[in-house]
Amino acid sequence: MSVPLQILAMGKYLPPRQVSAAELEARLNLSHGWIEAKNGVSVRHYVDGESNSDLGAKALQRALDKAGLAYEELDLLINASGSYDYPIPETSALIQDKMGQGNSGMPSFTVDATCLSFVTALDVAGAFIASGRYRTIAIVSSEVASKSLNPAEKESATLLGDGAAAAIVRRAPEGSPSALLSSVMETYGSGAMYTHVKGGGNVCHPRDAGVRDSDFTFHMDGPAVLGSAFRRLRPFVKKLFGPLDFSLQEVDLFVPHQASKVALEKAQRFFRLRDEQFANYLAQHGNCIAASIPMALHDAIEAGRIQRGGRICLLGTAAGLSVGGAVLIY
Amino acid sequence: MSVPLQILAMGKYLPPRQVSAAELEARLNLSHGWIEAKNGVSVRHYVDGESNSDLGAKALQRALDKAGLAYEELDLLINASGSYDYPIPETSALIQDKMGQGNSGMPSFTVDATCLSFVTALDVAGAFIASGRYRTIAIVSSEVASKSLNPAEKESATLLGDGAAAAIVRRAPEGSPSALLSSVMETYGSGAMYTHVKGGGNVCHPRDAGVRDSDFTFHMDGPAVLGSAFRRLRPFVKKLFGPLDFSLQEVDLFVPHQASKVALEKAQRFFRLRDEQFANYLAQHGNCIAASIPMALHDAIEAGRIQRGGRICLLGTAAGLSVGGAVLIY
Repeated sequence: MSVPLQILAMGKYLPPRQVSAAELEARLNLSHGWIEAKNGVSVRHYVDGESNSDLGAKALQRALDKAGLAYEELDLLINASGSYDYPIPETSALIQDKMGQGNSGMPSFTVDATCLSFVTALDVAGAFIASGRYRTIAIVSSEVASKSLNPAEKESATLLGDGAAAAIVRRAPEGSPSALLSSVMETYGSGAMYTHVKGGGNVCHPRDAGVRDSDFTFHMDGPAVLGSAFRRLRPFVKKLFGPLDFSLQEVDLFVPHQASKVALEKAQRFFRLRDEQFANYLAQHGNCIAASIPMALHDAIEAGRIQRGGRICLLGTAAGLSVGGAVLIY
Repeated sequence: MSVPLQILAMGKYLPPRQVSAAELEARLNLSHGWIEAKNGVSVRHYVDGESNSDLGAKALQRALDKAGLAYEELDLLINASGSYDYPIPETSALIQDKMGQGNSGMPSFTVDATCLSFVTALDVAGAFIASGRYRTIAIVSSEVASKSLNPAEKESATLLGDGAAAAIVRRAPEGSPSALLSSVMETYGSGAMYTHVKGGGNVCHPRDAGVRDSDFTFHMDGPAVLGSAFRRLRPFVKKLFGPLDFSLQEVDLFVPHQASKVALEKAQRFFRLRDEQFANYLAQHGNCIAASIPMALHDAIEAGRIQRGGRICLLGTAAGLSVGGAVLIY
């Protein structure tokens, strides 16, 4: 079911504070070069007083500026993020308020599929556009990982970063080739806890007796995620490209979740993709949870790596454990 | 844009532990009769070791049983809740796993619009059904409020309860009158903090210096919510019923968010609705956040208050501050 969805414009915002591999190695008592060898993230950005809604509002403003649209021309705002400002309210309303649009009445809500939130929100936006419910939709992925890093888990503590990206999508104009050609999502709850932040919800509530500081930090069992995900990928891609008349290898731009260095290298080999097709921006901002895919897509568009009419595939995994993907004509 | 969506069946699950007004009055040092006078909640249920995904899985199983469907016959599971088991992963994957379906691959994600999550997820489900993306969708709202109650805020501490409800919605069969006739949502972010749980996200992180136990509890400025919401309601209802050939007063069943006694009484007067049209189940389980509306809808269906072909209006407010509603033919 092809949907006449067009990505009109994108925006990206990174908090100004840059944290180099060397700085982090010193802080975490790691030998010089450990991070480069382990995950190749040279720089990541950390918030310094800002939160998800601050980053999200700035990314959205940049996307609107690039689109030449005013906020009022949007019909809906979807926050598509795995982390948040507060347990209640969800973040979309706060992004709206920080845009100076708190009295606009513009509908907004959150779609959370952890690292796949952007891809899932794109699927939701496509359905809204196809059904005629909304025409012009902002999708904002804004993540703050830095407050939940566990210094004892070096792999994830050196991998994750903060950042936000926004996309303005709309019903493609008549005659435009732009479309959302295919979307697939699969969730395997048996792997739900491979990636988690245990504390902060109702299972391990901050007021519960015996909770520890480390409960509020991020944990990722990288090998379990990788093993489980790659076992699913071949049939998944078959399903994603099944209705299409071209293959994954024939896309112009492949934007994977920027999960880790190992995952990205493995994915590029597994899918037999050339460097110019494969969007890898991990070194510049690390894994920014759900903002990873739209940030990388933004950077690839800015670098001129994709032109109108070109084929894009977004694909990733998420805590869930979910595998999700979308194929678009830009 | 009418959508051929049918609510096939619903399920509800309450944790077994009942907490009476008298028990709560004793615990909170309130005079006998205070709760009855203030908000009329005679009984609410609290979890005792269970969490959102436990309640949600049980509600979903009941809905499937009533529908005569197996889990495998679903195409998508949407968790539509404002509270959760863990910050990561989101709850839908955990519900799936607790259904014994953790290897099913069934896609799932969370829609969060706080108290309006169910109504918003119904809108999303309608778009997916209209666009042909999915045919049969489970929407599960499962809330645990009891772990975040502030004993110092008597109004909300005596008002909220735990509970879950699930709806199986599908493309209405040929010839069926069932439809989602109209959906409207408005968000006013300037009122985002009227209702909040401050601590637990990135603004007030559990590891931040100076956070207090009370930061992790629920706060609601009832008068501000009420004032702001009722100011918006008349134009809102005009928009919701604008495309329809009947008025709000002509619906067979009106299911409001079970926000509070004052809100429900005010709403019934404001909208000039008869008792038999108005679903008020607050006394039996209190305000169960996003589960309030589907729990009340479930109870009204079970009580035979709505028949196939009858008109239903769901309407509520949420932290955001959002106003949302849907009109359906059952």
